[in-house]
Amino acid sequence: MGAEQTIKIRVRYSEADAMGYLHHSRYFQYFEIGRVELLRTLGASYADLERSGIFFVVVKAECRFKAPAKYDDELELTTRIERQTHVAIEHAYEVKCNGTLLATATTTIACVGRDGALRGIPPELGEPDSRKSGSTNGHE
Amino acid sequence: MGAEQTIKIRVRYSEADAMGYLHHSRYFQYFEIGRVELLRTLGASYADLERSGIFFVVVKAECRFKAPAKYDDELELTTRIERQTHVAIEHAYEVKCNGTLLATATTTIACVGRDGALRGIPPELGEPDSRKSGSTNGHE
Amino acid sequence: MGAEQTIKIRVRYSEADAMGYLHHSRYFQYFEIGRVELLRTLGASYADLERSGIFFVVVKAECRFKAPAKYDDELELTTRIERQTHVAIEHAYEVKCNGTLLATATTTIACVGRDGALRGIPPELGEPDSRKSGSTNGHE
Amino acid sequence: MGAEQTIKIRVRYSEADAMGYLHHSRYFQYFEIGRVELLRTLGASYADLERSGIFFVVVKAECRFKAPAKYDDELELTTRIERQTHVAIEHAYEVKCNGTLLATATTTIACVGRDGALRGIPPELGEPDSRKSGSTNGHE
Repeated sequence: MGAEQTIKIRVRYSEADAMGYLHHSRYFQYFEIGRVELLRTLGASYADLERSGIFFVVVKAECRFKAPAKYDDELELTTRIERQTHVAIEHAYEVKCNGTLLATATTTIACVGRDGALRGIPPELGEPDSRKSGSTNGHE
Repeated sequence: MGAEQTIKIRVRYSEADAMGYLHHSRYFQYFEIGRVELLRTLGASYADLERSGIFFVVVKAECRFKAPAKYDDELELTTRIERQTHVAIEHAYEVKCNGTLLATATTTIACVGRDGALRGIPPELGEPDSRKSGSTNGHE
Repeated sequence: MGAEQTIKIRVRYSEADAMGYLHHSRYFQYFEIGRVELLRTLGASYADLERSGIFFVVVKAECRFKAPAKYDDELELTTRIERQTHVAIEHAYEVKCNGTLLATATTTIACVGRDGALRGIPPELGEPDSRKSGSTNGHE
Repeated sequence: MGAEQTIKIRVRYSEADAMGYLHHSRYFQYFEIGRVELLRTLGASYADLERSGIFFVVVKAECRFKAPAKYDDELELTTRIERQTHVAIEHAYEVKCNGTLLATATTTIACVGRDGALRGIPPELGEPDSRKSGSTNGHE
């Protein structure tokens, strides 16, 4: 199992849409906060990484919205590293409010240099998931 | 094949992130513009629909990001109705810039009333996709 | 002197612009968070107010930007009620990062009903500033 | 009188807040679009300027909101260069919808280099306002 962390995020007024619901695009901004804060608990700062020329770009994102979040709701966002390869990390997310599951999602981020070209993830950010080397892993 | 439309959207300064790239969450806001404008060409106004108590909520969204868009890029967003059931519409999207494919995506939106409960899509918004009535379609 | 509160807000990646700075428009979203959180410490919930048909609209906003905030900076936002009349509240704001003043601002919000018409501020949200009734008040 | 231009901007769903109104912070993003498009009609591209190491930062912004804009409203934004000095430009803005004035605003932007230090505005972006050289102008 990969690293996992739950943080709280309160829905801002400017993030709700005309229905009064958290706009679906905002969840992806919350997921990014989840990734950054998970990284921080692992001892790394994404801001520092960027200053050293290491960037992560989102190459794939997918979310299922099950129930709406409303302005001022205090959400619990759980972010988990699902898989890690030499150049990419897949995260899974759950968003809950008062115990109700609002959304589940996954994203894949890839490590690139200042030039945008793929590069290896620095070893201090964790090792590739050994499960991936197994021949029986049929996922994706 | 469903209705399809291509519109142009210029990346705003406030939409680019610290890498100078259009933030990945913004694509989902662009897709929403694509849906609304496609609806407009079909003779309907989403604002009017809402005023009459008909809403569409995003229940699923998925995007693959292939190349970055930058501030001031003029993007071509193609929005296509991929499938339509009695209560939901699946759209597919392509984002290009100067002929280069930047992203592909799909979303599923569901029709709900003012109370948030599922309701049938008004007939003036098109008929359910007849392909969906086939007994062999196991998708979804 | 009016009520005052300082909160911390960390700059999100999606809030920085292509220069890597917090986009100037975002400060106004932060000020709104400051107002809502100040209200909460005064025992009221803006979400509850809205549910009871009481809204506040921004009628004037002004900000001076002195130094940039960057992604991941943890900002200190001080929000202070500067003046209060029967229908409006003027707030003043200071944004600092590590002791450096980044921005100062003021906003004026007015109390409106569900119909958008001006209405009196509920007494539980505080009394009009008595200084305002004096004939010698030369402020503004 | 300085250069002036009117553009149309349609309010996006994701830009309306829980009241169904264009969030006040978004006006400042629209004003930025106004500045960029005015610059484009003057023959310059802000994206190109940035690539050549010339940036403009907002040092002051002020807006008065007179009536709300709603989702899907097609707004007319007029942007005018009000004054220009060697290092700064002051713009004035008017936002209308169907002839009704919704907001008026001014911003001051300053020209900086890649290091963030003030620098002179390139001559191709226009000359300082000669009215400014008059000894009787006590403003600012």
